[in-house]
Amino acid sequence: MSSQNDRILMKHGAGGRAMRKLVEDVFVKDAPDGLPEGSVGLSAMDDGAAIPIGGGKFLVVTADSHVISPIFFPGGDIGRLSVSGTVNDLAMMGATSVLALTCAVILEEGFPREELERIQASIRATCKEASAPIVTGDTKVMGRGEIDGIVISTTGVGITEHVIRDAGFRAGDRVIVTGTIGDHGLAVLSARHNLGIEGDLRSDVAPIGSLVALVMARHPGAITAMKDPTRGGVASALHEMAHKAGVGVVLDQNALPISSEVRGAAELLGIDPLVVANEGKAVMGVRAEDADAVVATLREHPLGKSAAIIGTVTSDRPGSLVLDTGFGRRLVAEPEGEPLPRIC
Amino acid sequence: MSSQNDRILMKHGAGGRAMRKLVEDVFVKDAPDGLPEGSVGLSAMDDGAAIPIGGGKFLVVTADSHVISPIFFPGGDIGRLSVSGTVNDLAMMGATSVLALTCAVILEEGFPREELERIQASIRATCKEASAPIVTGDTKVMGRGEIDGIVISTTGVGITEHVIRDAGFRAGDRVIVTGTIGDHGLAVLSARHNLGIEGDLRSDVAPIGSLVALVMARHPGAITAMKDPTRGGVASALHEMAHKAGVGVVLDQNALPISSEVRGAAELLGIDPLVVANEGKAVMGVRAEDADAVVATLREHPLGKSAAIIGTVTSDRPGSLVLDTGFGRRLVAEPEGEPLPRIC
Repeated sequence: MSSQNDRILMKHGAGGRAMRKLVEDVFVKDAPDGLPEGSVGLSAMDDGAAIPIGGGKFLVVTADSHVISPIFFPGGDIGRLSVSGTVNDLAMMGATSVLALTCAVILEEGFPREELERIQASIRATCKEASAPIVTGDTKVMGRGEIDGIVISTTGVGITEHVIRDAGFRAGDRVIVTGTIGDHGLAVLSARHNLGIEGDLRSDVAPIGSLVALVMARHPGAITAMKDPTRGGVASALHEMAHKAGVGVVLDQNALPISSEVRGAAELLGIDPLVVANEGKAVMGVRAEDADAVVATLREHPLGKSAAIIGTVTSDRPGSLVLDTGFGRRLVAEPEGEPLPRIC
Repeated sequence: MSSQNDRILMKHGAGGRAMRKLVEDVFVKDAPDGLPEGSVGLSAMDDGAAIPIGGGKFLVVTADSHVISPIFFPGGDIGRLSVSGTVNDLAMMGATSVLALTCAVILEEGFPREELERIQASIRATCKEASAPIVTGDTKVMGRGEIDGIVISTTGVGITEHVIRDAGFRAGDRVIVTGTIGDHGLAVLSARHNLGIEGDLRSDVAPIGSLVALVMARHPGAITAMKDPTRGGVASALHEMAHKAGVGVVLDQNALPISSEVRGAAELLGIDPLVVANEGKAVMGVRAEDADAVVATLREHPLGKSAAIIGTVTSDRPGSLVLDTGFGRRLVAEPEGEPLPRIC
């Protein structure tokens, strides 16, 4: 007898609890890490892996497939997304200088060559922006109806002396987000469904390695934990970070940087921007004494102008996320998944 | 006005001349390598990239997406293929010890979880066989009809002190293949179309890093060039190697190791095993004086039992492949592409 549990559902790729459980149960459980002492491997389920290579250095490796639809959207395209997503995962691990990117493309038979060339131009421009070289790749073609248009899988390799984990929250840390939230997901949703509001919404997709590098250089050791709030948004990222560190997080609703366009679209659609994907942002845990200075540094950078302290890490309610609305507090449930499919 | 040239065709993913031209024109042309002196980057269009990291060592990086259909076939499955394909690309660059693999999976909504678990078990078993740890991954889900079942993108990272290029053929070298040819492609074709001959055909899919390592250790410097004859088979691999090195290759038809099953199926289907994909083989250029000893070493290894010298590199007819049939010689045209779609 077959049941819903026997089949993969959209939520299994949506960045929330359902995906985490699938990955834990199928890919991570009982997996031998096979890595040297001091590594961050598969079981850490972080933004990437880190492997010591001597001299106090770590090789950082990340991987992503990009299945976004539509492939061109306000503020970006699948090419810019692929490079940014991978470069940002490296940065989240503390590897802000990119040694190498790989790019494997799967195309549907009949895909317009002109679109492929536009995507490739975007990849190249974003690589230049991120100082990230593509060093090798792969090209596959599937038949009509076997794949929807184009899928791009990218991998990043970087080196760092300071690995930053997503599990490093300590009670008392401040929670910082590097800019407005929800822009990517709502821009893509709007473009996909021709909601007529897309003129005002733009994805934030951008490589933010230089932003993270600036903070790491100016405030050594200040960042205790970091994650990019992609699928499932800030809520999913914070749930995972709180869960891993065995701490709670209290968010100040009034401090959340949300553009008026996102606020309007989110209200119209009944979607909470907290659970919507971002592609050019980081959520950081920062030592309390450094938090104001880190925000000031972030705001000096073009990609950090709306950075804000949005909450505090607590020892209460380990694994939970609490929203302080100004009128009272309520628990934010861990999202089952991003409300929108194929968002990245 | 739109023409055939404006659209991606199946042959653009088929490993032959059409794919090479697309990759050159779209991905490689004018691409800044952005790599340190002494690197092997995108423009080399080798099996992977190699980047000097000091101490005489090179970081080797490779990337592949696997779109094979059917996903389970005689002798293997998409999981074993994904690990073997990536480990073998590393080995082809001289990196026989694997530092890290990444694995990004894209699933179709409704995909049976039991099949995913079987594939994951196969990935794990092949990783163990290849001493290759998966260190990070990604999971995406696309809607029904947006992707056919499952696609797996893998990347490999290895370290070597001896980078082997696919461009290193020198006139006088012997050409060695490490075993029988055509097994993978014909086994997959047979399984896909229920030809009723699949009982006799099995894919050769296997990680061959240990086989290459044995030769490199026993015969330092003997291998002048190496490539795995996947899509487009031995003919495509040799065409590319001859073209890059500016040499010709004369193949001895009677020396080609071909199993009786493959020979029978190939004759039945009118397909030349020379252009059919392999997934557990290498084509090597070897210094003439070492060739017999290298074959003897290869034959000691379970994966090299049918290794053979199959030809000679010449200074005549640069870029061309000549088949000596025993009765005369004929030019082998560069395949436009693998005759079978979605073979890897």
